[in-house]
Amino acid sequence: MPPTITAFESSPDRGKGQARDMRVRWALEEVGQPYDVRLVSFKAMKESAHRTLHPFGQIPTYEDGDLTLFESGAIVLHIADRHAGLLPEDANARARAIAWMFAALSTLEPPIVELGMAMLFERDKSWYAERLPVLKDRVRVRLGELSRRLGDADWLDGAFSAGDLMMVTVLRRLNASGLLDEYPGIATYVARGEARPAFRRAFDAQLAVFIAGSKGS
Amino acid sequence: MPPTITAFESSPDRGKGQARDMRVRWALEEVGQPYDVRLVSFKAMKESAHRTLHPFGQIPTYEDGDLTLFESGAIVLHIADRHAGLLPEDANARARAIAWMFAALSTLEPPIVELGMAMLFERDKSWYAERLPVLKDRVRVRLGELSRRLGDADWLDGAFSAGDLMMVTVLRRLNASGLLDEYPGIATYVARGEARPAFRRAFDAQLAVFIAGSKGS
Repeated sequence: MPPTITAFESSPDRGKGQARDMRVRWALEEVGQPYDVRLVSFKAMKESAHRTLHPFGQIPTYEDGDLTLFESGAIVLHIADRHAGLLPEDANARARAIAWMFAALSTLEPPIVELGMAMLFERDKSWYAERLPVLKDRVRVRLGELSRRLGDADWLDGAFSAGDLMMVTVLRRLNASGLLDEYPGIATYVARGEARPAFRRAFDAQLAVFIAGSKGS
Repeated sequence: MPPTITAFESSPDRGKGQARDMRVRWALEEVGQPYDVRLVSFKAMKESAHRTLHPFGQIPTYEDGDLTLFESGAIVLHIADRHAGLLPEDANARARAIAWMFAALSTLEPPIVELGMAMLFERDKSWYAERLPVLKDRVRVRLGELSRRLGDADWLDGAFSAGDLMMVTVLRRLNASGLLDEYPGIATYVARGEARPAFRRAFDAQLAVFIAGSKGS
């Protein structure tokens, strides 16, 4: 039996692949593992059956036999631990790749999510014009630092790893902001991730869910 | 040679143990590993020598022979991987403990940090009175969910693990907000973590740095 993941029945990003199931789909495609998907509505996500799997009522979850996991970072790391292709064999290189996973989730994603939330929910607030540039600058600081570390390299630390997978998915949340255009090295890095066949397969799979949902509604 | 970590020369929390070196100190104390500390000033943190270790110019870092790591989550996981005491031996239980590490850093910490930043930097803004309750409610949602999952248990999933260590350090950032008092189960959980001898040793070590720095200045 392949593992089962959960994803939005109707993703708020309208199939742009910015929901967190994309990370897990991409990881499973990179290591060549089939998987099943169970779609969850916003309402069902907050009900007790789903909360048994995910205490915070979110997607994705991951079920494989006796094991249930939540948190996209933990799920991708678990997949990378069990299958070749997402983490180097050398112990030190492996630890560094995992550090980039944490950097993506702890250092890059929070200011990116804050910017996204303000753009969604604070547009009509009196403070929006004053606060937006502050939020953008917080993201710019991180993009500048990331850009300097990446330099001319293809990936963050040697070969493509789960660290790059997480970082690219986090950076893709900026697609609509215009900020990636200010850092051509980062934009190229994201495009390099998006060009991977495993990314394309994962992207197409989540897009198919959105298109099917739109036709049905 | 023991590993060397970096910490603030003068911690902005004035020795309350809320800086991220506390997580690494605590993990090393739990597994009984000695360590050296190199103190870094705010100025030096942003200079190129430190950025070689940490691309985002932060603390803590971790140096052990040929290996350099950044991101407190990655460092704690690396320590937990190499020494008994922070992760269960059973593979599924181990994956679930790691999921709690990611939950602490990806799901709990971002709204807690946003609340803290607003309380520090937006107090004199016209929008502070309107925005503060929104930020507090975002944290309350997560505390409520965490509280329901924890129930009457001592720890998040069986025995104390690196997942609890990360969660307790993240929740301690709320100490000054009063929010923990609204969730007695969570407050007791944090106190349970703080009562561990390894926590005390780590806390005392970081406090000694702050006190020594205060006397010198």
